[in-house]
Formats: sequence, C-alpha cells, structure tokens
Amino acid sequence: MKITVADVEGEVDYDKVIKEFGVQPFGEFAEKMKQGKLFSRALRNFPMFRRGLVFAHRDFGQIYGAITGGKKFCVLTGANPSGPLHFGHRLFLEQALFFQQLGAHVYIPISDDETYVFRKSETLEQATENALKKVIPDILGFPFDEKKTHIFVSTQTKRVYELAVRLSARSTFSTIKAIYGFNNETNPGQIFYGVTQSAHILFPEYAAGVHPIIVPIGIDQDAHIRLARDIAERAGFHKPSSTYHKYIPGLQGGKMSTSKPNTCIFLDDNPEEARRKMMAAFSGGAPSLKEHREKGGNPDVDVAFQYMYFLLENSDKKLEEIRSAYRSGSLATGDLKTMAADKLAKYLKEYQQRRRRNTRRADKFMLKD
Amino acid sequence: MKITVADVEGEVDYDKVIKEFGVQPFGEFAEKMKQGKLFSRALRNFPMFRRGLVFAHRDFGQIYGAITGGKKFCVLTGANPSGPLHFGHRLFLEQALFFQQLGAHVYIPISDDETYVFRKSETLEQATENALKKVIPDILGFPFDEKKTHIFVSTQTKRVYELAVRLSARSTFSTIKAIYGFNNETNPGQIFYGVTQSAHILFPEYAAGVHPIIVPIGIDQDAHIRLARDIAERAGFHKPSSTYHKYIPGLQGGKMSTSKPNTCIFLDDNPEEARRKMMAAFSGGAPSLKEHREKGGNPDVDVAFQYMYFLLENSDKKLEEIRSAYRSGSLATGDLKTMAADKLAKYLKEYQQRRRRNTRRADKFMLKD
Repeated sequence: MKITVADVEGEVDYDKVIKEFGVQPFGEFAEKMKQGKLFSRALRNFPMFRRGLVFAHRDFGQIYGAITGGKKFCVLTGANPSGPLHFGHRLFLEQALFFQQLGAHVYIPISDDETYVFRKSETLEQATENALKKVIPDILGFPFDEKKTHIFVSTQTKRVYELAVRLSARSTFSTIKAIYGFNNETNPGQIFYGVTQSAHILFPEYAAGVHPIIVPIGIDQDAHIRLARDIAERAGFHKPSSTYHKYIPGLQGGKMSTSKPNTCIFLDDNPEEARRKMMAAFSGGAPSLKEHREKGGNPDVDVAFQYMYFLLENSDKKLEEIRSAYRSGSLATGDLKTMAADKLAKYLKEYQQRRRRNTRRADKFMLKD
Repeated sequence: MKITVADVEGEVDYDKVIKEFGVQPFGEFAEKMKQGKLFSRALRNFPMFRRGLVFAHRDFGQIYGAITGGKKFCVLTGANPSGPLHFGHRLFLEQALFFQQLGAHVYIPISDDETYVFRKSETLEQATENALKKVIPDILGFPFDEKKTHIFVSTQTKRVYELAVRLSARSTFSTIKAIYGFNNETNPGQIFYGVTQSAHILFPEYAAGVHPIIVPIGIDQDAHIRLARDIAERAGFHKPSSTYHKYIPGLQGGKMSTSKPNTCIFLDDNPEEARRKMMAAFSGGAPSLKEHREKGGNPDVDVAFQYMYFLLENSDKKLEEIRSAYRSGSLATGDLKTMAADKLAKYLKEYQQRRRRNTRRADKFMLKD
C-alpha cells in the first residue's frame, strides 16, 4: 500500500518532503551519533547516517536516549512477500543490523496477509510460501545475531491476530479510510490490515514488555507509522519512533520495480548476472569517451556511482576521489561501472554464502510464538 | 451482534419469520428423521425435532443426505464469551450432541474477539479468560465425546486468522456494511469480524477437508450464515447448512438477558437457587387458586410449562397430560412449578457433576491447532 509522495521518482526534494510530512530532519542525531564516545568507531561511522542517507525521523530522541542511557530498545522492519528482496531492501536491513550491534533485538514481520489481501498474490498460500522459501532466506543473508533476531510470518503467528484485535478497538473505520482511501470495493481484510500492521509494529512491546521501538521505513509508508503511533497512544504502548531514508535509484535511473527485473538487483541474483546488470545501468557519462574526457560525467545521476554512495563503498575518502575523478572526466564510465560491478559481485557472493549457511538453521532466527 | 427480527420478544409468528428470512420450514425433515429406520429409537425421538422446536433450515438436504448416506459431516456451534452460558444455550448444544451421536464431529469456536471488538468486555484478556475459565467448562457439562469434539478460542487459534485473511478477499466492505449496518465510528475489528465468523463456520472444512457443515443458530444470527454461505461459494467451500430453533422465554416471560440474572437460569446456578428462580417465574395460572380451579391456566405463556416443553420433559405423553391438567385447572400453578423446579434442579446437579469431571481434562476436548 503506497501513500504517494509528490515525486518519489527521480530527483526528490527531501527538504520539501520533511515539511510536507511533518517529520524531523535527522542531521542533529547523525551529528551526535558520529561524535558519541559511547560508540565504537565502526558504529560511529555508520555510512547511512554519516552520509545523510537517513534524512528524517519521528521521535528518534527516545531511541537516542535508550542507546546513550544503556536502556532496552528494539528495531523493527518488515517485508512484504510479494517478490524477492532487492538491493534497496538493504537500506532497511542495514539499519536493523546497525541497531542490533548497539544492543537492540530485531523483529522482522513478514506480511503474507498484506500481500494477499492487496492481491499481490493469487492465493494466501503463495504469499506464505514466498515468505518462508524466499524472503526469510533473503533476510538470513544479512549477518544478524540469532540470539537477538525474531522473524515471524504474520498469519503463522498466533499473537499477531490477538494483538490486532486488541488494537482494533482503539481505532475507527474513518481513521483507516482517511489514511488508505478505501472505497466500497475494498475488502474487509484490507481494512483490518491497517491495524494488523500496527500490531506488527507494536509486537515487540506486546511480546517483550514496554520498551521503545525504532522502525526504519520509507517515507511513502509514513501513514502506517502515524496510525501505529496514534493507536499506540490510545492502547497504552510507547509511540514507535521511525527513520526515513533516501531512495536508491533503479538501474535505469527511475524507480526500482520488482516486476521489471532490469530495474533491480535482486539479492539472489547470480553475481555475474548482477555484474552484467550494473554494466548496463544508466550512466551519467557523456555520450562518447572523447566528450567524457573533455566535459566530465555527472555522478549525481550515475547509477554505478549512486550504488557506491548508498551501499557499496564504505570509505568517504575513496568515494570523494571517485566522485571528483568522474566529474572531471579522468575516470571513464566503463571504469566506474567496473568498480561498482566488482564490488557488487563480491558483496552478493559473500551475502549468498551467508544466506545458504543461515538458511539451514533458519529456525534459530524465528520468533518463538 | 444482533440482527433484529420484527419481534423476537414475546409471541413470535414463526411462519412470518420463515417468509421474511427466506428460510425453509423444517417440518419435512423432522417427519423424515422421526421415521428413518436408520436411526436408533432415541435419536428418532429427538424432542427438538419431534416437537417442532427446530422450525426452519437452510440446505438441510445435504446434511440429511450425509446422514442417510453414511457420509462425513460435522456440526458447528459457537459461543460468545460475554457472559456465562444459560439454559437457552442448551438449544444449540443439544442439537450439536444429537448430530454427534449420528457420527458428526463437533466444532465449537469461542469468539473472544467478537466479545471484545463489540465492546461487551473491557479488555480482550477478560474475554479470553472468560472463554477459558467459564464458557469452556460450561460446554463441558454436556456429554460430548472427546474424540469428536474440537473446542477453540478464536484469538488463541492460529488458523482462524489465516482462514479469515483467505476469506476476506472473497468479500467486500459493502457486503459487510449491508449486513451489519456499520458507520464511521465502527472499528476495523468489527468490520473484519464479519469474515472471522465466516472463518469459524468454515473452519471444519479448512481443517479436516471438504464435508458439509450444519450450524444450529438463532434466526437473529441468520445474516452471519448468509454471509458465510456467500463467501463459501466464492472461496470454493461447501455452503454451510443451518437450522433455526424457537426462542425459549426468559423467566419473566420476556426475553432472556444475561445482564438480568432473574430472567435466566445459568448453567452454573446452584440447583437450589435455580429451583427458587423457577418457583418465582412468570405463570400462566389465574390470580387465585380458586379462580385457577375454575377457569384453568394457560400453558402457552407459563414459563414452567414452556421449560418442560423445550427441555425438561422428554415424554410427549406426560407433557400432554400436564398441559391438559393445567389448562383445565386441575393442576395448580404451584404444583406445575414444583415439577419443573425439581426436574431443573436434577438436570443441573447432573450437568454440574459432568462439568467438574470434564473440566479437569478439558484439553482432551480442545482443538489441536
């Protein structure tokens, strides 16, 4: 269920987004986290914060307070099993990993109910099976700590419905309607899913006692957070906090779409196939090498550069060298793409090894319901 | 959730009800069941059929076909844990027992979700606890066969939500709205409960493969059956069948109301307390004994007689003797009440012994989810 941002495709004016959605800029906290003596160097340098990729938040103060005060908090990020995970999902999951390394337990609801009631799968079985056979293995490619990880499939977890029923009496149809814009053709499952998603978000408090929850989420999903915060308050839970990150572009420069494989790197793409996709990605270089050497390229729209910036190059120093070399024209488009493609293939290879290894013991990472 | 019948209180014109609701008169099947050589004498004489207490049905033919053809079928009757069970619940549960004796498995969903979302309990925990501590023991006072009984609490049974999600995409909000008359203050749990109840009704097919289901239910709940039948057809299940029984009057002659204890015999009433309630019940006798001897009484409105007719006197012969003696005035009101009170106290004593005995091993009767 997408809530439309004026223009999530192409160039997004994030200042305008902050104003329109009434969220807070993240800069202040990014700055604090960078300097915090409490954090190890690696954590202080979490690229998504350092580079401003996380650009906004709601109520992050309570999370920062829990981190610096050594208090219990947790992180929650869900997945909709309508297709395999793609490279953009790393933005949620890398944040979840980051907070886990700071001590948080990670909760990952897989919303097979959402997939089905919004008709992104033919049957519920397909959605449930996709959750179990594809999405959970995809998540297990990330180096989560099994002792602090609780993955659960919505329809397979008794307490989800129990909590959703509990929360449903704290909301009204008109609230849900205002957020989702339902009409008479809407099915009752779609209406109820509004509170089910709040149940996913508040599940950690329900299962493990009162503690603050941070939810890394796309700004287009902000309505869900607002609903969950509203319901939380009425139902005696903490209002959950959220962070919002910038959009990583699709391989053709527009939006990623899982139904158009040439716009996405899937996390289970064969590394060589992914390399080929990257070599064919939208480029910010000039039409000819000669012209590129003369006028230089535009790293701001170059997909290979953007993927390095978002997720593939941890060193700011190297990134700046690459940026200026590309802008000046001394770094050719083909060479930039090769760098990104190599890093991508290496990442996927390691990721997929971990995916295989952890999938064999997937039950260790599952919620005990 | 009550769907209003023109006049479920007081004298009900059941012929009018049959016409208005578009259900079928049960007489034909009552006659067949009475004569069926396939049934033991006790079953042939099931009083609720023999006396016309079950007055209507939907699609009973498929159940009759299963019974006479020796095919698998099951019976489903639910309870809403908003209060303890009362004597009127016997009308559902005695039918369930009857069908179980004919070979059917019995499924009994306890809708703690319904109780809470329609605000008949302050919290969901209260409803769930009432289901487990009160309603299930109340059910276990009936001599069900543990091998063919599957009691389940809605929020405590994983597959209920799973099935409800599955069914929700086969319905629309406008259908639910038309049946329940929701408005904008309605909460999403109430909207979803429409499909959850269909999930309860279709659960046996979901859990145990395709087979016909008979649901003994009050005519005021017919809308739920119609919704379940509609959804069943779209979702590839059998349309469930239903039977409708007459209303047993409250002790004061009007409707039973669990919130007014002097209108109800509760199944866990102390037998002596129940005896006192019966002695104080609304009577069809004349104001004075002298006048009663002269003019006679009216058994049709006399609560003691009605309770004998509905549930306390199995012998038609005895019942007719009592009826004519009361009508003539030779049987005094006090004597009639004493007869009913004695039978009631005896019933409750035996019932409560069974309740205690079976409650110790309640898990034997619970659904394995």
